[in-house]
Amino acid sequence: MYRIGVVDTTFARVDMAKYVIETIKQYLPNAKIIRYTVPGIKDIPVAAKKLIDEEGCDIVITLGWVGASPIDKYSYLAASIGIIMAQLLTNKHIIDVTVHEDEAEDEEKLYQIAVDRAKKHALNVVALLKGKEALSRKAGMGIRQGIPDVGPIKT
Amino acid sequence: MYRIGVVDTTFARVDMAKYVIETIKQYLPNAKIIRYTVPGIKDIPVAAKKLIDEEGCDIVITLGWVGASPIDKYSYLAASIGIIMAQLLTNKHIIDVTVHEDEAEDEEKLYQIAVDRAKKHALNVVALLKGKEALSRKAGMGIRQGIPDVGPIKT
Amino acid sequence: MYRIGVVDTTFARVDMAKYVIETIKQYLPNAKIIRYTVPGIKDIPVAAKKLIDEEGCDIVITLGWVGASPIDKYSYLAASIGIIMAQLLTNKHIIDVTVHEDEAEDEEKLYQIAVDRAKKHALNVVALLKGKEALSRKAGMGIRQGIPDVGPIKT
Amino acid sequence: MYRIGVVDTTFARVDMAKYVIETIKQYLPNAKIIRYTVPGIKDIPVAAKKLIDEEGCDIVITLGWVGASPIDKYSYLAASIGIIMAQLLTNKHIIDVTVHEDEAEDEEKLYQIAVDRAKKHALNVVALLKGKEALSRKAGMGIRQGIPDVGPIKT
Amino acid sequence: MYRIGVVDTTFARVDMAKYVIETIKQYLPNAKIIRYTVPGIKDIPVAAKKLIDEEGCDIVITLGWVGASPIDKYSYLAASIGIIMAQLLTNKHIIDVTVHEDEAEDEEKLYQIAVDRAKKHALNVVALLKGKEALSRKAGMGIRQGIPDVGPIKT
Repeated sequence: MYRIGVVDTTFARVDMAKYVIETIKQYLPNAKIIRYTVPGIKDIPVAAKKLIDEEGCDIVITLGWVGASPIDKYSYLAASIGIIMAQLLTNKHIIDVTVHEDEAEDEEKLYQIAVDRAKKHALNVVALLKGKEALSRKAGMGIRQGIPDVGPIKT
Repeated sequence: MYRIGVVDTTFARVDMAKYVIETIKQYLPNAKIIRYTVPGIKDIPVAAKKLIDEEGCDIVITLGWVGASPIDKYSYLAASIGIIMAQLLTNKHIIDVTVHEDEAEDEEKLYQIAVDRAKKHALNVVALLKGKEALSRKAGMGIRQGIPDVGPIKT
Repeated sequence: MYRIGVVDTTFARVDMAKYVIETIKQYLPNAKIIRYTVPGIKDIPVAAKKLIDEEGCDIVITLGWVGASPIDKYSYLAASIGIIMAQLLTNKHIIDVTVHEDEAEDEEKLYQIAVDRAKKHALNVVALLKGKEALSRKAGMGIRQGIPDVGPIKT
Repeated sequence: MYRIGVVDTTFARVDMAKYVIETIKQYLPNAKIIRYTVPGIKDIPVAAKKLIDEEGCDIVITLGWVGASPIDKYSYLAASIGIIMAQLLTNKHIIDVTVHEDEAEDEEKLYQIAVDRAKKHALNVVALLKGKEALSRKAGMGIRQGIPDVGPIKT
Repeated sequence: MYRIGVVDTTFARVDMAKYVIETIKQYLPNAKIIRYTVPGIKDIPVAAKKLIDEEGCDIVITLGWVGASPIDKYSYLAASIGIIMAQLLTNKHIIDVTVHEDEAEDEEKLYQIAVDRAKKHALNVVALLKGKEALSRKAGMGIRQGIPDVGPIKT
């Protein structure tokens, strides 16, 4: 029985965890899902690492939301480095879903991006639990989350 | 009895620790609060880590203040990476309150941002001590510190 | 018998692994190649480290693809730091092939860059397995991957 | 008897160590001061760490000098991250004095900034050796080094 | 007998290692020099660390070459952080010689910068092997590599 961590934030403007949990339960109904809510993206790396170290999670998915200012982007960079370091220290995947407030011009579109990205990365979590080559069929295929796939370059 | 660290700086222009300590004492009157004052933001990561490693703090809140120049922003980035690394090395939360001098056009407004952000993050400290899902009710709700909540995207 | 890891992504728009594996097999027909496909570049560092720690790989080659936006470039920076840290934690080389979507103006050209860079770095993997001075004959010679060599400065 | 490390560089254009050592000796005449001179700022982190690990220093002060180009600023960022990591790995403070060549328009002014910043941070070193709350009286007071204090925001 | 590592790249357009080795041999004729050639700057940190961990080098000098694009500069930043981390993990100096393609307007000038920087940093390697204060006579003296010394600020 897999143990799957879900880290989300109070800063985000969409309850992405709901869609992540629904998707995971559909494909892995026996998985134990452990949720951890923190204030913002810079709190995510340690939460993910605690889910692995203290709760025995096999994999974690994190749901970040980033503002539009240059400082928000520096926070994104710091958090991204932290999430990568947490993975290197635990040898477990932490799939990082991030939505940037300036990705869309209206809120409805931003909501759709968040939901689509969360669901598709939940499927990536399920695939990565299956093994190193579970996603290899899609390698180089221009897969996207939050927007439609762009597909491979055709030659 | 919780042990809570508070790191602040002489560089800051508002005594945010006062508001943090007041807020924590209101909700956790028995908590032991240990304060650590350093010169500036780049001194914060090790101070927070020492509070955890040497003083046994369960959680730390840090109160940074960042100037308006590009170099100040690089220092913010370095300090942010350091605070995240300190968390990964200790598996404890370090809640990072930061005020940027260019967030507001006048000092009165900047003061209000600092106080509001410090108080609200003090409440986040209290919540995180309660457990991984203490903040989950507010997940995705567009909660902000220093400014009013923006709320979730309505669909 | 060498064990060589290949990490690629579903985000990429060219199946670079195919060219890498072909090239390696041509020079090291007995090598064991272990493939690992992840969603995007920020998932690469831990995949590479797992191939070294858990699969005993002697070296890893990673095949990243980076979008054109400033945020994509921050993700590139975070992933690059992560790939370097993974090497420092394992004392093994992780040869990092990266293609940026804004390197070329049309897709055909981008495809050619990706294939050429992948093949040439596969040769670098083969050379690095031979020893510390296997590439020394070409040191300072302005060797490039993805584009023609620029050559040494002539004086 | 405290052991205090002083790291400086040949790149700097002011002998800041002289002022640091004078100031420390005035307040801590029995302290053992160990100096370490390196070429430039990127050499500082390991020098500081060696002073702690190999020479038993209780604290280190580093005296960096940064050029005006964007690359110099990236070097500043890398060095800053390194100095913070060295602190996290040793649980000792490394007080980082940095002068940027573009802080002042003439050399005389730059010299004054360097001397003032070095002296004031030497006092911070002395204070931090006294304990975690030695600087708390000045917390939030808008203290500056290199320029006059800006003071707290008055409300 | 010192063991000195020299890491260079095939990306560079000048064989800087030749000048480094000549200079070191002139001052330390009995030193054992171990060369390691890698493709590019992001491969340097682990090569330097392997020279220390696996070959017992007392110090390493690395010879990087950086392109002119913003992405090249991010790679420089990542490599710089990596070289600093490698030093912190080994407590050995890694003297980082880097030439940026946009430092000079013509190739002849760039060649001269590369040779001068490589030779002068080779002398820094020799000095650092002598001890912590071998360079202290030149501290704050505005020493440069690749260009003439700018000298100390005169007051």
